[in-house]
Amino acid sequence: MRAVDIIAKKRDGHELSREELEFFIHGFVRGDIPDYQAAAWLMAVFCRGMSHRETVDLTLIMAHSGDVLDLSDIAPVVVDKHSTGGVGDKTTIAVAPMVAAAGLPIAKMSGRGLGFTGGTLDKLESIPGYIVPLSREQFMAQLRRVGVVVAGPSADLAPADAKLYALRDVTATIDSIPLIASSIMSKKIAAGAHAIVLDVKVGRGAFMKTEEAAIELAQTMVDIGRSLGRRMAAVVSDMNQPLGQAVGNTVEVVEAINTLRGQGPADFTEHCYTVAGQLLVAGQAAADLEQARQRLQQLIRSGAALEKFVQWIEAQGGDPRVVDDFSIMPWAPVVEEVLAPQSGYIAGIDALEVGLTAVELGAGREKKGEPIDHGVGIVFGPKVGDFVERGQRLFTLYARDAESLARARQRLLAAYTWSEEPVEPPPLIHRVIG
Amino acid sequence: MRAVDIIAKKRDGHELSREELEFFIHGFVRGDIPDYQAAAWLMAVFCRGMSHRETVDLTLIMAHSGDVLDLSDIAPVVVDKHSTGGVGDKTTIAVAPMVAAAGLPIAKMSGRGLGFTGGTLDKLESIPGYIVPLSREQFMAQLRRVGVVVAGPSADLAPADAKLYALRDVTATIDSIPLIASSIMSKKIAAGAHAIVLDVKVGRGAFMKTEEAAIELAQTMVDIGRSLGRRMAAVVSDMNQPLGQAVGNTVEVVEAINTLRGQGPADFTEHCYTVAGQLLVAGQAAADLEQARQRLQQLIRSGAALEKFVQWIEAQGGDPRVVDDFSIMPWAPVVEEVLAPQSGYIAGIDALEVGLTAVELGAGREKKGEPIDHGVGIVFGPKVGDFVERGQRLFTLYARDAESLARARQRLLAAYTWSEEPVEPPPLIHRVIG
Repeated sequence: MRAVDIIAKKRDGHELSREELEFFIHGFVRGDIPDYQAAAWLMAVFCRGMSHRETVDLTLIMAHSGDVLDLSDIAPVVVDKHSTGGVGDKTTIAVAPMVAAAGLPIAKMSGRGLGFTGGTLDKLESIPGYIVPLSREQFMAQLRRVGVVVAGPSADLAPADAKLYALRDVTATIDSIPLIASSIMSKKIAAGAHAIVLDVKVGRGAFMKTEEAAIELAQTMVDIGRSLGRRMAAVVSDMNQPLGQAVGNTVEVVEAINTLRGQGPADFTEHCYTVAGQLLVAGQAAADLEQARQRLQQLIRSGAALEKFVQWIEAQGGDPRVVDDFSIMPWAPVVEEVLAPQSGYIAGIDALEVGLTAVELGAGREKKGEPIDHGVGIVFGPKVGDFVERGQRLFTLYARDAESLARARQRLLAAYTWSEEPVEPPPLIHRVIG
Repeated sequence: MRAVDIIAKKRDGHELSREELEFFIHGFVRGDIPDYQAAAWLMAVFCRGMSHRETVDLTLIMAHSGDVLDLSDIAPVVVDKHSTGGVGDKTTIAVAPMVAAAGLPIAKMSGRGLGFTGGTLDKLESIPGYIVPLSREQFMAQLRRVGVVVAGPSADLAPADAKLYALRDVTATIDSIPLIASSIMSKKIAAGAHAIVLDVKVGRGAFMKTEEAAIELAQTMVDIGRSLGRRMAAVVSDMNQPLGQAVGNTVEVVEAINTLRGQGPADFTEHCYTVAGQLLVAGQAAADLEQARQRLQQLIRSGAALEKFVQWIEAQGGDPRVVDDFSIMPWAPVVEEVLAPQSGYIAGIDALEVGLTAVELGAGREKKGEPIDHGVGIVFGPKVGDFVERGQRLFTLYARDAESLARARQRLLAAYTWSEEPVEPPPLIHRVIG
């Protein structure tokens, strides 16, 4: 077998065999196949696509390129969730303790923010003491003892994906559905969960810009997982405007805690019930979505979900007083309520512009490894479909200084579109693949 | 400007600006843009194509990545020819002295054989003493004095193409018409000729397998050359069966010399008149093709073309006695006339199989830099369309030993197809782009 023949076969639109994919990926990881051949192959995959069988094979090959966790001795069913990334997406922080409180262990390796998307790990680090990097033993022990763990990615899992992803990043081959799907799913398969719920974001503030592409990605990942024996579900959820009210780090943790108290924004709360409900059903902790929702509402009302959050944060080194005292988290010094410059219905709040403004404020990063400012952020008031009177609060800004605040104010005001006629708010969930 | 954005733009099927192509190619040649980004870009070009404007720009950028020869002080018009490579293609060896004898200087940097195609330089080295590598000064001096020079490629010309070609070779991005066209034309532009005639081969024993692709390549190169101020013509010629009778090195030189004496095979002689005629017209040494043909026939009859061949070979270090004594060239020791195993019309002689058999005999090479055996080869008797009686001579083999001869005999016999009905011989020239 020769690498150049495998590239040519894919270039000409043919299906690669399992053996050919193994030869190529193993050779690449070992360094026998150089980056330039892998780059040509990636672009050929980008242009010609991959069949379901190829995508499943690629996922499995990458998953088995390193360690594969076995969580079976912890519980019969351990669940995991994954979001493709958005603006204001603090779902994991609320959903993980909700699900764990229902008795379903959830083990998640999460990521950091990059570009317009925030990262769960960055948000959690707003909580003083929270430890992101856990050893394998710490990860397993906390999962067993508390039933919830959200840690940094392990370099031992799916190293082929890590190496391939780094190359995709510099060769314009990120935005390929089979490559995205196999990348995500290889890490999920290696991380060992038995049931996985995917939250695929669609819209201005997401990587998938069209509903069609998002559904295709979601269906592809669900199919891969099922082919590999996982229980799967996916929701395709809206990311044209930010999710919930808060965009930043400290402000998003506040919103997640409020939601665990039953005092979160309506849209974010509903989104959490949807994702957590799918997790309970996929994890066989509820017979159906209706039963799951009732159970989750009861766990919020009783305080059990918040109590699980406290246990989790404490187990992972964080200061549990955070639930009663938000002031122990970092807060930016310059705060301003920005008022509506006009009356009317809000027709749009461009989530991409909001995400980029958050990065400019310091809440996110443009390049990997850059430090972020946990205290800055944005908290929105009314959202798309709401009627606003001129002079009413539109959003609150938390900034490092007056200058960055002024820039953010201007940019955010320009991210709104207005209508004199009533506007239908966008659907929260575009599609559920159950 | 960022390399990854340029890759993405091409990946999405957009046209790159001159500035973007310059940034990318210059960066690649300098080593600022790594091989893996160039590989991804090449595959994107392969999949999405390039516009005429992009192809012309790429050609010019590569041509100007090194020295560009100025031949204007040698003659008002210097011509060049280029063949895309085939089996039995000794055209340059006959055509170059024909054209030079007509008073039109011809300066050619040629190539070596690789895979199923032979190389003019390898063939010329069958002549004892012939020197392939010439210095710039030697090249220019011989062109000025004799009017014909055929030498090895200069590393100083179009180095960007050389670097890009090496990467295309290992990334399955050779077979792209804009990349082939810009590669060939960048070297031709850098080599300084004012008028260029292209011989694009099509069929089993050529890189272009279909007439459609060959015409597209020919037209693309003609358009590039004209856009850059060159006088251009192209012929698309058949390569389904070998050209002429001889395939090898010594045997092909013999055929070229016989042709210069007016005793060559009909098909090869006609091909030479066609290519040389186009050169005379493009080089403004004849008013039209009819006048060109009469002039060329007269140069053959008078011996002037053969005399120019002698001058050329002598000037370039070769032994001029070769024209009177073929035995001074290398000849393989084992010779066999292979007879027709059946009677019938020859319906096909698979040129690819013939080329590969010649490589197996030792006349060509599978990898760059491998030595070749000048003495081995094949000389065909009847060709496609001819009626053959069982037991009549089909071809003569020149081999190093009995074993390789036996293998070649078997393989060549299998390369023939037969018909009981009369067969129309294939056209020699599929298209002329004048």
